[in-house]
Amino acid sequence: MAVLDMEPRDIFDNLSPLDHRYWQANKDVFDALSRHLSESGQLACLARVEGALVLAHLEARGLLDASARQAVEAAVAATLPQAIYAEEEKTRHAIRALVNVLQARLAEAGRPDLGPYVHLGATSADILDTGRALSIRGAVLEVILPLLCKVELELCRLAIEEAETPQVGRTHGQHAVPITFGFAMAEYASRLGSCLPGLEAAARGLVGKLSGATGSYNALSMSYADPEGFERAFLSSLGLAPGGHSTQIVEPEPLLRLLLGLNTAFGILANLSDDLRNLQRSEIAEVHEAFGADQVGSSTMPQKRNPWNSEHVKSLWKAFAPRTMTFFMDQISEHQRDLSNSASERFVADYLAGLAAAANRELKVLRGLVVDRDRMLANLALSGGAVLAEPAYILLAEAGVTDAHEVLRRLTLRAEAEGKAFQEVLLGEKELVAILDARLAALGLPAAAVFFSRPEAYRGRAAQRARAIGEACRALAAAQLAGAGGEGGHGAAAKASAT
Amino acid sequence: MAVLDMEPRDIFDNLSPLDHRYWQANKDVFDALSRHLSESGQLACLARVEGALVLAHLEARGLLDASARQAVEAAVAATLPQAIYAEEEKTRHAIRALVNVLQARLAEAGRPDLGPYVHLGATSADILDTGRALSIRGAVLEVILPLLCKVELELCRLAIEEAETPQVGRTHGQHAVPITFGFAMAEYASRLGSCLPGLEAAARGLVGKLSGATGSYNALSMSYADPEGFERAFLSSLGLAPGGHSTQIVEPEPLLRLLLGLNTAFGILANLSDDLRNLQRSEIAEVHEAFGADQVGSSTMPQKRNPWNSEHVKSLWKAFAPRTMTFFMDQISEHQRDLSNSASERFVADYLAGLAAAANRELKVLRGLVVDRDRMLANLALSGGAVLAEPAYILLAEAGVTDAHEVLRRLTLRAEAEGKAFQEVLLGEKELVAILDARLAALGLPAAAVFFSRPEAYRGRAAQRARAIGEACRALAAAQLAGAGGEGGHGAAAKASAT
Amino acid sequence: MAVLDMEPRDIFDNLSPLDHRYWQANKDVFDALSRHLSESGQLACLARVEGALVLAHLEARGLLDASARQAVEAAVAATLPQAIYAEEEKTRHAIRALVNVLQARLAEAGRPDLGPYVHLGATSADILDTGRALSIRGAVLEVILPLLCKVELELCRLAIEEAETPQVGRTHGQHAVPITFGFAMAEYASRLGSCLPGLEAAARGLVGKLSGATGSYNALSMSYADPEGFERAFLSSLGLAPGGHSTQIVEPEPLLRLLLGLNTAFGILANLSDDLRNLQRSEIAEVHEAFGADQVGSSTMPQKRNPWNSEHVKSLWKAFAPRTMTFFMDQISEHQRDLSNSASERFVADYLAGLAAAANRELKVLRGLVVDRDRMLANLALSGGAVLAEPAYILLAEAGVTDAHEVLRRLTLRAEAEGKAFQEVLLGEKELVAILDARLAALGLPAAAVFFSRPEAYRGRAAQRARAIGEACRALAAAQLAGAGGEGGHGAAAKASAT
Amino acid sequence: MAVLDMEPRDIFDNLSPLDHRYWQANKDVFDALSRHLSESGQLACLARVEGALVLAHLEARGLLDASARQAVEAAVAATLPQAIYAEEEKTRHAIRALVNVLQARLAEAGRPDLGPYVHLGATSADILDTGRALSIRGAVLEVILPLLCKVELELCRLAIEEAETPQVGRTHGQHAVPITFGFAMAEYASRLGSCLPGLEAAARGLVGKLSGATGSYNALSMSYADPEGFERAFLSSLGLAPGGHSTQIVEPEPLLRLLLGLNTAFGILANLSDDLRNLQRSEIAEVHEAFGADQVGSSTMPQKRNPWNSEHVKSLWKAFAPRTMTFFMDQISEHQRDLSNSASERFVADYLAGLAAAANRELKVLRGLVVDRDRMLANLALSGGAVLAEPAYILLAEAGVTDAHEVLRRLTLRAEAEGKAFQEVLLGEKELVAILDARLAALGLPAAAVFFSRPEAYRGRAAQRARAIGEACRALAAAQLAGAGGEGGHGAAAKASAT
Repeated sequence: MAVLDMEPRDIFDNLSPLDHRYWQANKDVFDALSRHLSESGQLACLARVEGALVLAHLEARGLLDASARQAVEAAVAATLPQAIYAEEEKTRHAIRALVNVLQARLAEAGRPDLGPYVHLGATSADILDTGRALSIRGAVLEVILPLLCKVELELCRLAIEEAETPQVGRTHGQHAVPITFGFAMAEYASRLGSCLPGLEAAARGLVGKLSGATGSYNALSMSYADPEGFERAFLSSLGLAPGGHSTQIVEPEPLLRLLLGLNTAFGILANLSDDLRNLQRSEIAEVHEAFGADQVGSSTMPQKRNPWNSEHVKSLWKAFAPRTMTFFMDQISEHQRDLSNSASERFVADYLAGLAAAANRELKVLRGLVVDRDRMLANLALSGGAVLAEPAYILLAEAGVTDAHEVLRRLTLRAEAEGKAFQEVLLGEKELVAILDARLAALGLPAAAVFFSRPEAYRGRAAQRARAIGEACRALAAAQLAGAGGEGGHGAAAKASAT
Repeated sequence: MAVLDMEPRDIFDNLSPLDHRYWQANKDVFDALSRHLSESGQLACLARVEGALVLAHLEARGLLDASARQAVEAAVAATLPQAIYAEEEKTRHAIRALVNVLQARLAEAGRPDLGPYVHLGATSADILDTGRALSIRGAVLEVILPLLCKVELELCRLAIEEAETPQVGRTHGQHAVPITFGFAMAEYASRLGSCLPGLEAAARGLVGKLSGATGSYNALSMSYADPEGFERAFLSSLGLAPGGHSTQIVEPEPLLRLLLGLNTAFGILANLSDDLRNLQRSEIAEVHEAFGADQVGSSTMPQKRNPWNSEHVKSLWKAFAPRTMTFFMDQISEHQRDLSNSASERFVADYLAGLAAAANRELKVLRGLVVDRDRMLANLALSGGAVLAEPAYILLAEAGVTDAHEVLRRLTLRAEAEGKAFQEVLLGEKELVAILDARLAALGLPAAAVFFSRPEAYRGRAAQRARAIGEACRALAAAQLAGAGGEGGHGAAAKASAT
Repeated sequence: MAVLDMEPRDIFDNLSPLDHRYWQANKDVFDALSRHLSESGQLACLARVEGALVLAHLEARGLLDASARQAVEAAVAATLPQAIYAEEEKTRHAIRALVNVLQARLAEAGRPDLGPYVHLGATSADILDTGRALSIRGAVLEVILPLLCKVELELCRLAIEEAETPQVGRTHGQHAVPITFGFAMAEYASRLGSCLPGLEAAARGLVGKLSGATGSYNALSMSYADPEGFERAFLSSLGLAPGGHSTQIVEPEPLLRLLLGLNTAFGILANLSDDLRNLQRSEIAEVHEAFGADQVGSSTMPQKRNPWNSEHVKSLWKAFAPRTMTFFMDQISEHQRDLSNSASERFVADYLAGLAAAANRELKVLRGLVVDRDRMLANLALSGGAVLAEPAYILLAEAGVTDAHEVLRRLTLRAEAEGKAFQEVLLGEKELVAILDARLAALGLPAAAVFFSRPEAYRGRAAQRARAIGEACRALAAAQLAGAGGEGGHGAAAKASAT
Repeated sequence: MAVLDMEPRDIFDNLSPLDHRYWQANKDVFDALSRHLSESGQLACLARVEGALVLAHLEARGLLDASARQAVEAAVAATLPQAIYAEEEKTRHAIRALVNVLQARLAEAGRPDLGPYVHLGATSADILDTGRALSIRGAVLEVILPLLCKVELELCRLAIEEAETPQVGRTHGQHAVPITFGFAMAEYASRLGSCLPGLEAAARGLVGKLSGATGSYNALSMSYADPEGFERAFLSSLGLAPGGHSTQIVEPEPLLRLLLGLNTAFGILANLSDDLRNLQRSEIAEVHEAFGADQVGSSTMPQKRNPWNSEHVKSLWKAFAPRTMTFFMDQISEHQRDLSNSASERFVADYLAGLAAAANRELKVLRGLVVDRDRMLANLALSGGAVLAEPAYILLAEAGVTDAHEVLRRLTLRAEAEGKAFQEVLLGEKELVAILDARLAALGLPAAAVFFSRPEAYRGRAAQRARAIGEACRALAAAQLAGAGGEGGHGAAAKASAT
């Protein structure tokens, strides 16, 4: 049987940036992904599925012994992509080619008697869809989720470490009221953290099938009285379950939900990146990405220190988020299936690689992030205390001043018009100050003259929440990370029960 | 206080088809949606939220009595959109306008003392986001989910009623192997059914907030020692809970997940519509949409009976599915929020209306669907039995014929070349027939001469699965429909525990 | 003939924000759009098309006289949406309903003899697609293009007025090298200006049709020997031409290209808005949106002045830009057409309204934009002259210093490490200064001590280009605006040649 | 200088299907694309641009002689990706790495004196954007446009060859009125043909730049009195022109317009594919994709002949069309640019490869398409002549029967109810037949008894238009194809005037 005569190719001749530039930039991560998602990785999954099917047939017929198992496993391992592609040039049908090669391997190994069990009762899509579940589940559980967990742990670290670091809260890009930087990071820890358990569940919930050409078990009914039971046994040997219904293909929604969940996490990384790159603006400069001593920021402006890693993550999001429309379009397959989701689904591999590249870069950004606490404090002071217009309004309102908001709005306008700090103008209003002092005293807070000179103290529950969120999310992500690393399980118990 | 002088408008002058043509076509459904999602509906939610906040303040301070409650509720009810818009022309700030009107209503009702509690400790987004949760939750639980449940029940009915109706299974648009029409409908019952519980959970899981301008409870900390506790009490009075973290706005992901779940269901409707309109092709004609006696199919071709309702559902999907990209983009809000998700989020109302229109139309299609069983059987016979090439292959393979697939492939080519039915050619191969007969006998099936003349009998588990799926899904959807109809609960127990 | 009994509706009960909130905010613009795009506006176009067809038949048969023309035009004018909708409840076919109403109007007017010419030889889509071309062409030429031209003129004004205003150029959010604010605005004038002529051409290039049910002129061939000639005559009476080919519907690409062109312009508005809102950040504060004296920035933070108009424009872009995917999907219509583009195409009206709202708001922002020249100059000085690292590098490189970039990169690092201004460090390097002085002298520029203390002078061709672009674009936009305002023409000559 | 130590990789280990499966399937096309779009191809463009800049500097200073030109060109040719990547590991800046390598090559070649001119006055984006214009222009003009022209020529061939082949026209999937198959193909010839000239113009209109860090020519102004003139000279040596304005990057719209134009063509391929796969349905079977004698249609159903190539094209469209949203998002770059369009723009290479794969496959489908004229005629007869309800209606209406449409609609219902052919029922209506005969005679057509028995004759202008469109489009595409094949020109004259 011919083997495709192929010359290995310089990666710089590849077309997709995923296979040259971003492979270079993410070698470990992309090599790990490749084991699941490359053509080699996917074909290995398909061969594994075909092997499992032979074993299931033997088991069901009481013919399974160690020698047969060994022969099948050896044949599966020897079924290489080059041979499959060479055969496909003849059959023009990828799975038929795989079947032919696997049968040839069994024959070469002296077990031609096992040949008829190869693919028996299956339609191509049974193998393809079951194999895809394995391949994507592996990529998500072993590569992407651990990466996202590590990002989450860095966010938690920052939330906790910077829980007390004063920063001005910004809404509409305008100074609003004080928060802490840890609180700002806790936002992302909370949002990303809320995605992680669902992603793991969705990856583990991917389904396989063995229901044949139209999902109605016609072929398998010619072999077994309980074809659904046989399907369950076969899938279970791969750690999978069937879906609620299948046609020629598995129901598209389990994979769709996983991908939508991943893109939801991707959007959170994009938002974080936007925040970090804005905080690196020359005029703000509250954080900085780590910068190598030899690194060049601009080929022509030697002073430049660009937030290019954060820009990169945002840019990857722009490249990949719109592809969710393809995922939605792939829900539609006519009658018991058409093939118009075949090519498009192959690009799920690209999507996963794009997300992995973004998460990997985000991890690097967070690990090296330099926080300039002095600058944060300085920026907080920039508004001359106008960020304290809110508590002044609240205190007056609580004291029964109905038009408190309007009173304060005018004071801020006056401060602006007179070029004075807001505190100065406010403390000049003796009647108001008296009301404020009384109210502050009732709350156990310092008098107005002190209170309105220290904006960083007006931070509400920022520090407490930063720590609480950081710690709760850290515990969850650490547990999830410890349990990940294998398709089959989450934690030791899960590992024992699977594969 | 001025009230906007507004002339009611003829709906035919509206710009969006949702507010003219599709309102006409979906009057009951759209009127029901309007109560939640129109500007009136949304402003009523906002007024309700502001009222709940006043009551929460009074409660927390031990000031709440029946008279105060009555005054607040009356003022809320009297806070009409026209007045708010008139006030907004001055303030150019929607929530400040609402606050001013509500305070005016309280004053008019002789309770100016309650005025200072209006909006106290809240930032606009506290009210807006909490109100949006109410408005969208109401629209989904009271209008959209019941519609989807009804569609699901029709699908279940068809799965069960047509469980035994022979139909040819089609893959790639080609005749594959026999199924039943009920099995084909069971696909959609299973897929749509798998969406419904998650949608309800997502709608009930929408979150509110009262954490102030940057989510750190700065303002509320000036009033209460436990601002988070106050937030929980306030939200609980509206049947809501806070999210894991908020900035000026609630975490975007709970709403995003609901919308993605809805669009997943929308994609299933689109797929179903494609199937139904293809089954109505002149050459296939297995089903028909109900057609009125006076109805005109074409202005120029009097014979036309177009599947225009199914086309309509597909077209709505094309109009609305891409808007999910907006939902993903709305995840990004800089720092403690920017306003660039404000306008875009308003169009969630349009999205929900589009989905409701599609579900409503699909319901009509399914309720009136005419199934032509004779035509289905006739189409199944069209291939001259070639749909039975598969069982012939399986039987031979099971009997140890290694190249069974290739043998059959050549027979089908020969049948085509000679212009004969596949059965005829197959039954002429005496040696094969002998093998087939033996194998069929072992399975307790009729001999080849009979087996290969009745393709409809080779249907695997189609009928059993159609009924099993139809019945299981019907039970779930019926229970969900019975429990729906109120924001506050799912079934009696849930109703009791909420609001 | 019955007329639909319809109660006018309060706009606050509408579902789409386009028909309540954004109508309120854009009354003049939306009223103008409504004349073309509302259901009334579109039905009026359809009636006009049907009328033109009757006249074309009469003309072709030598039967057209003033009385017939008058009768037809009166009947067209009297064909109101309410009557059409009432009739559609019976026919369930919109165009058949229109035809019936129009025939009834002719009969009522004593010309039942003209009835048979109504719709003669046409299929519904002939009328719908031709009417849509009129309706969209009108909306674009009379409303949207004039708005975009006005935005363009404001951009040109700013480019010219601020041509000399020093501003720091920013790349990656970092200070790069000096420009002028007029130059920054010239970018948008240039980009938006490059869109306008193509948009007008695309709107004028929308096509109509009268080629019948499948585009092959079958019906019309029963009436005329030269049906294509008759189609041209008919369309020409409406100022339209046929496309290169049609099926039941016009080729989708002319409309698609117009919409893609509009979305290209929309993206430029979005980019401009992002720039303007970033320039309004508290720490940057170089521009400000106009703010009313009574306007409230935040319901709780009285000091806030938010860039909410720019945020609004960006938000509208997020809501509408993804809808281009629908436009691409609407290219696909099976065989001689399916109807699955019918509902989706109706939402082109929404898209146009969304773009109009954004352009209208952008116009308001630009007209009221406050430019803080002092702040721009102050920000330019923030980097301590590091924005002049580039010219130092260029001057040294030009003088033959091979590692000039590296020399300067180290100087900026040293300045940062020592907390000194870059100028100070640079001017302390006597050998370098000597080289710089020589090179500066050769260019006719001041010596290093002066040159490096005035960063705003290092602005390249910013001022000249701002003025040149501003003036060139202004001339073009002014001419286009003068020529707009009528469907039929661009300037007087065009007007004469059309309709 | 180190060279990256890289092991070539088996393509089956690549992640993107573009770099394994689809490379295998499109070897010649993808190899051709790789020369422009792979990392090697793009870096070669960048080196070429840097070389052109050195030459431009030498020319401007009167220093350019043959020896310098030779040295520069040799250094450019010796600047290989491996070396650049190795250097980038140090600089972490791709262009600085390229500059360093190019300078090293010049030094190695004994011309270190040319080193200072490398990159002089340029910012990275000057080189990157100019190089990208070259790379994309080359891919489009040399690979994609020729492919699309070839597809167009096949469409024209089919339009002409099948101009007389009767086929039923289908609207809504229902039989409408007769056309010819050539007319159906002419639709696609017309639509695709309308795209081609604009695509070529857009590719040739891609712009370069040399305006420096913020687009204001600051750096270049330190070297030349007329920096814009120098930019024009430099770009002209590469066959390019500058845009109307640039910041650090070229205006995004020229590339955007090219990509939108390409996606418009892609949508036409998708529509064509949908038509072809529907025409291959078992029940319709009017065309067939060529099928190899050994080819396997299904791994389990030996009789299957699937339209998998057409399905593949549609599937690629689903994978790539949504990426236009990325192109629109890449319009937005803050101030004088941020880097968030950097990664996303790299995936333009993937998009172009996806489109090329689809066009290549479409070409194969069309070249091998089997047209079953007998089946087309048989299908046309299926409706029993009901496709002639339209001319009956027209003829009656022309004869003054006002309710002609309704009369015919009832006749078709009666035919259906009575299970008779429409012709039979119609010809039984003697009064109507008399009117029809008179009218047919007036048109020089056969009497009703004949006319209504030959539906294929009622085809309007289908045959004439098929030929006219086919021939006109063929001439244009052939001329365009002849002129293509080189970046520099369109036909001989164009070639002379360019480069």
